[in-house]
Amino acid sequence: MPEPIRVTVWGENVHEHRDQSVKEIYPETMHETIAAGLRASLGTQVEVRTAWLQQPENGLTEEVLANTDVLTWWGHAAHGDVADEVAERVQRAVQSGMGLLALHSAHFSKVFIKLMGTTCSLDWRSDGTDRELVWTVSPGHPIAAGVPHPLLLEREEMYGELFDIPQPDELVFISSFSGGEVFRSGCAYRRGRGRVFYFRPGDQEYPTYHHDGVKQIIANAVKWLAPDSPRALPEVHHRAEREWFTP
Amino acid sequence: MPEPIRVTVWGENVHEHRDQSVKEIYPETMHETIAAGLRASLGTQVEVRTAWLQQPENGLTEEVLANTDVLTWWGHAAHGDVADEVAERVQRAVQSGMGLLALHSAHFSKVFIKLMGTTCSLDWRSDGTDRELVWTVSPGHPIAAGVPHPLLLEREEMYGELFDIPQPDELVFISSFSGGEVFRSGCAYRRGRGRVFYFRPGDQEYPTYHHDGVKQIIANAVKWLAPDSPRALPEVHHRAEREWFTP
Amino acid sequence: MPEPIRVTVWGENVHEHRDQSVKEIYPETMHETIAAGLRASLGTQVEVRTAWLQQPENGLTEEVLANTDVLTWWGHAAHGDVADEVAERVQRAVQSGMGLLALHSAHFSKVFIKLMGTTCSLDWRSDGTDRELVWTVSPGHPIAAGVPHPLLLEREEMYGELFDIPQPDELVFISSFSGGEVFRSGCAYRRGRGRVFYFRPGDQEYPTYHHDGVKQIIANAVKWLAPDSPRALPEVHHRAEREWFTP
Amino acid sequence: MPEPIRVTVWGENVHEHRDQSVKEIYPETMHETIAAGLRASLGTQVEVRTAWLQQPENGLTEEVLANTDVLTWWGHAAHGDVADEVAERVQRAVQSGMGLLALHSAHFSKVFIKLMGTTCSLDWRSDGTDRELVWTVSPGHPIAAGVPHPLLLEREEMYGELFDIPQPDELVFISSFSGGEVFRSGCAYRRGRGRVFYFRPGDQEYPTYHHDGVKQIIANAVKWLAPDSPRALPEVHHRAEREWFTP
Repeated sequence: MPEPIRVTVWGENVHEHRDQSVKEIYPETMHETIAAGLRASLGTQVEVRTAWLQQPENGLTEEVLANTDVLTWWGHAAHGDVADEVAERVQRAVQSGMGLLALHSAHFSKVFIKLMGTTCSLDWRSDGTDRELVWTVSPGHPIAAGVPHPLLLEREEMYGELFDIPQPDELVFISSFSGGEVFRSGCAYRRGRGRVFYFRPGDQEYPTYHHDGVKQIIANAVKWLAPDSPRALPEVHHRAEREWFTP
Repeated sequence: MPEPIRVTVWGENVHEHRDQSVKEIYPETMHETIAAGLRASLGTQVEVRTAWLQQPENGLTEEVLANTDVLTWWGHAAHGDVADEVAERVQRAVQSGMGLLALHSAHFSKVFIKLMGTTCSLDWRSDGTDRELVWTVSPGHPIAAGVPHPLLLEREEMYGELFDIPQPDELVFISSFSGGEVFRSGCAYRRGRGRVFYFRPGDQEYPTYHHDGVKQIIANAVKWLAPDSPRALPEVHHRAEREWFTP
Repeated sequence: MPEPIRVTVWGENVHEHRDQSVKEIYPETMHETIAAGLRASLGTQVEVRTAWLQQPENGLTEEVLANTDVLTWWGHAAHGDVADEVAERVQRAVQSGMGLLALHSAHFSKVFIKLMGTTCSLDWRSDGTDRELVWTVSPGHPIAAGVPHPLLLEREEMYGELFDIPQPDELVFISSFSGGEVFRSGCAYRRGRGRVFYFRPGDQEYPTYHHDGVKQIIANAVKWLAPDSPRALPEVHHRAEREWFTP
Repeated sequence: MPEPIRVTVWGENVHEHRDQSVKEIYPETMHETIAAGLRASLGTQVEVRTAWLQQPENGLTEEVLANTDVLTWWGHAAHGDVADEVAERVQRAVQSGMGLLALHSAHFSKVFIKLMGTTCSLDWRSDGTDRELVWTVSPGHPIAAGVPHPLLLEREEMYGELFDIPQPDELVFISSFSGGEVFRSGCAYRRGRGRVFYFRPGDQEYPTYHHDGVKQIIANAVKWLAPDSPRALPEVHHRAEREWFTP
């Protein structure tokens, strides 16, 4: 039996305490809800712990990251409060092989922006009137397995193009909204030895992380993001010897 | 001054004679309308001729293709009437460096299917109620230059995902429809020495090829598709000599 | 425990009988050697059978393909003897979700050419003097897990660029040869619901399929190619109802 | 006649003064040599100026960048001396639409690393014994037009894989070296509204920028990198109105 995937679910942990509307949807916090969904979906295939912004070193010490195969990230109100040093540490962990699942407003986290190299800006609207449809455009991708086509979210925030990201290595999902907007909502990348998946839905004002289809996608993504090889940061090597010179 | 781009606008030329509704929208035929749009947009930058299904060799002799830098293709009702030999000839011309602009229902042409290797199937609806919005997702791409974001087509046929194509080398446009569906509507590929662009809008029942934004995209696409190098079919070479063996 | 991956190892089965040199390297045939390697590498994770050109329907009936998760293909001397109908059947199986591992001279098989849409031509030399080095360029890809960097093959046929293929969705390996040539030797594609991996080494005149690193790559590729979802050919759907019209 | 492309050739300008060997190859400095090559290749199609590290604001004020369509960058010994503020300014200019040609050791410049999001590390050797062959793998790409296949550089520094970059949007060239190493040496990316091309050859100890084939590639790259649309940094938009809500 393979080793369980060690998942750390990171939460900003601000809205759940500040906003009554969010508290009602996520009384256990967003990160504990996501963590519980993963445990329910994947059972002994995963070992899930949580971490959050207000912990020392934002909960992401070198030791935590060294023991994390896949990190999920949700943040929105306090991107600036993540220490630069921590953001760089997470970036290095991804480059070394750790998987990163960037959720919804994590598009504007320091970590995601550093990994993309673009502004990661987008269009948005959140007035409680938009319905989201998430369409699969890469039906053979592991992250799309068992996902309804389309996946229907009755109410969600709208994110619209232009989403300023590098073209994904693999585009898995595209969303439409009631207002007619579209968005590349499932985007897979490789960075160094690690993989990154961006998944759009999950605004704090809507019960998205309670949705079965969303839980399925998050569980699929965690499996896809788990590394196959030992962790190692790509480094400069001086190949002084022309080892293969003589044929 | 650079040589003009030699464009051949190919039309199936069936609906325009058979269907009164189409005749009214395109009294000069669809291909002559597209050709006129290109001449108006690009002036002396292009030399545009037309060809159609009912001509000998479907209007696409070796000589015509040898003198075509960019071929635009519209077909729908009579894909099966294109001779296999002609479809293969066009495929070879693309592999040799000719550009191909596949328009709307050309997704199911013999030529496009051969170049993609997939079924090219999709979802559709044409009941006169759908509005299409074409969103740019690659704003620096030459084919998106000067195109409104979104481009609005008041009425069009709906094409929806799953569109069974290889992931585009560059995805330029995504459409949404009133029914909530989405579609990868501007897809750029390289095949051999040639380039292929698929552009979705253009059902025969709607006046799409009279639309300024659509004309702009078609003109941009023709410029992007024009080859930079002399035509040559990739071929097997026996490199018997190890020419660079001694360093 | 997950179901075993059902692998069919297809062999052309010509050189092994005709050429004494090949018979000596592969006394059990090439396909039985590849199959034995897979069984040794993956144990109960796979169920491996073989099929070959000279069987009825080239060994690839509808029933065989319906019960194959991953098909590996080696052919060279007799590409033209594969029935068109069989090649189309394999293409449809891939589009439906079956994985395909195209080995070495399978670049010129009917199946691979149909799936690529290009000529698949290349440069070559086989005079017994070339050493091949296979370098990993996507170190986090599952197919590269545990593979030496570079993987050294003391003697192999040379394949050189230009290899006329669509740009791979993911390029995993690049080879160099003693003559200074390079080749994209590990190329991953999605086609429909299925995946395709092309792996270059494996000329019949060299003992490549006995090499541990090669066996590792083939085992990794089989795991990556196995489908995650039930098989289904992408098809046209008429979405007559605007199901999501009312927001 | 189209407006000329405004090119700024940026040079680190250190080796040319410090190292006698470099001074002999590039008595006019590397950046002036590159600039002269561009003027000779492209004539009135370009307006070329130079800028260098030791100027105020490293020669790259907001005004200079606002009037630059394409920036070429060569640096090696003093990456750390480029002000962070200047590197960020250049990054924003690229995201806004300016083209960037990153030359050789610019892989380790602040600007390139920020745009890639990876470590950009690689293997290397520079002992005067390596011959480089640059092979075209995307023969229809504008940057490959008129380039010999392979392009032969008698002596160059070796750069080898793993080159830790995101998979290029388009891979145009692959190099091999006498030691058997390979390298993705021509890599095209889009970032925001801008384009980036990385071109490997050009170590200061070899006369690479005097080479006709290299000059051809640099001229081709400048043309490909020039923007087609007005400059604009992608920004967040609040689409408060559901403008296309009523179908």
